[in-house]
Amino acid sequence: MDEFKLDRRLESDSDTVMQTGLCDLRLSKDARWPWLILVPRRTDVSEIFELTPLDQVLLTFETEMVASALKKITGATKINIGALGNIVRQLHVHVIARFEGDANWPNPVWGFGKAEPYTADKRDDLIEKLREALSS
Amino acid sequence: MDEFKLDRRLESDSDTVMQTGLCDLRLSKDARWPWLILVPRRTDVSEIFELTPLDQVLLTFETEMVASALKKITGATKINIGALGNIVRQLHVHVIARFEGDANWPNPVWGFGKAEPYTADKRDDLIEKLREALSS
Repeated sequence: MDEFKLDRRLESDSDTVMQTGLCDLRLSKDARWPWLILVPRRTDVSEIFELTPLDQVLLTFETEMVASALKKITGATKINIGALGNIVRQLHVHVIARFEGDANWPNPVWGFGKAEPYTADKRDDLIEKLREALSS
Repeated sequence: MDEFKLDRRLESDSDTVMQTGLCDLRLSKDARWPWLILVPRRTDVSEIFELTPLDQVLLTFETEMVASALKKITGATKINIGALGNIVRQLHVHVIARFEGDANWPNPVWGFGKAEPYTADKRDDLIEKLREALSS
């Protein structure tokens, strides 16, 4: 089996939060929304149905653990979950905290406007809170 | 437990395809993309993590069975899967066949332009193919 290698665009557009059982968990560099990305450490997979059934279950549980933590930490109105991959084909799942009246509410975040950078403090604080919530 | 009742907007914007173990499977009335919607027959659930772990697994397997069938039937470039719910809060999962150069490629389908109706023939043909693929 080839060694897992994170797609370059995913790597440049997000910061690492932690590793979960199956995935690399990353925070998008776009501060307009608290936006997480789970990347299963599997090679040559673009669609969830290409994962083994066990990996599909792991991905679901890890996605929902992350979604539930993000909801708790941010008090989001709604969590948006999506696996699109029209641009980056390496399988990845978005978990985004949405708020009534946010930058593109109620439409999706993908492809909308330009990313706004985090301040280092704000980013580190969010990553810290996520690590805490996900390790307890 | 309250009886499951399909959200009115989901009902008016889509046609029934079949029932799966957990979900009502429906076809969006928007012919711009082959677009399916899975609605778990559970009451008062907006987020996937509010389902029991078993229902989360069922939802994943049913979503991916549908995604895989849709890919086979349509020859799509990429399947897009999303659970947003910013407008309709009853939990539902979108499974959409995307093609390079389609109406909003590579951006998402949600909130883009206006739905285009199917001809009855084209809709019935797609539903028939889906039922066949999903019952074999």
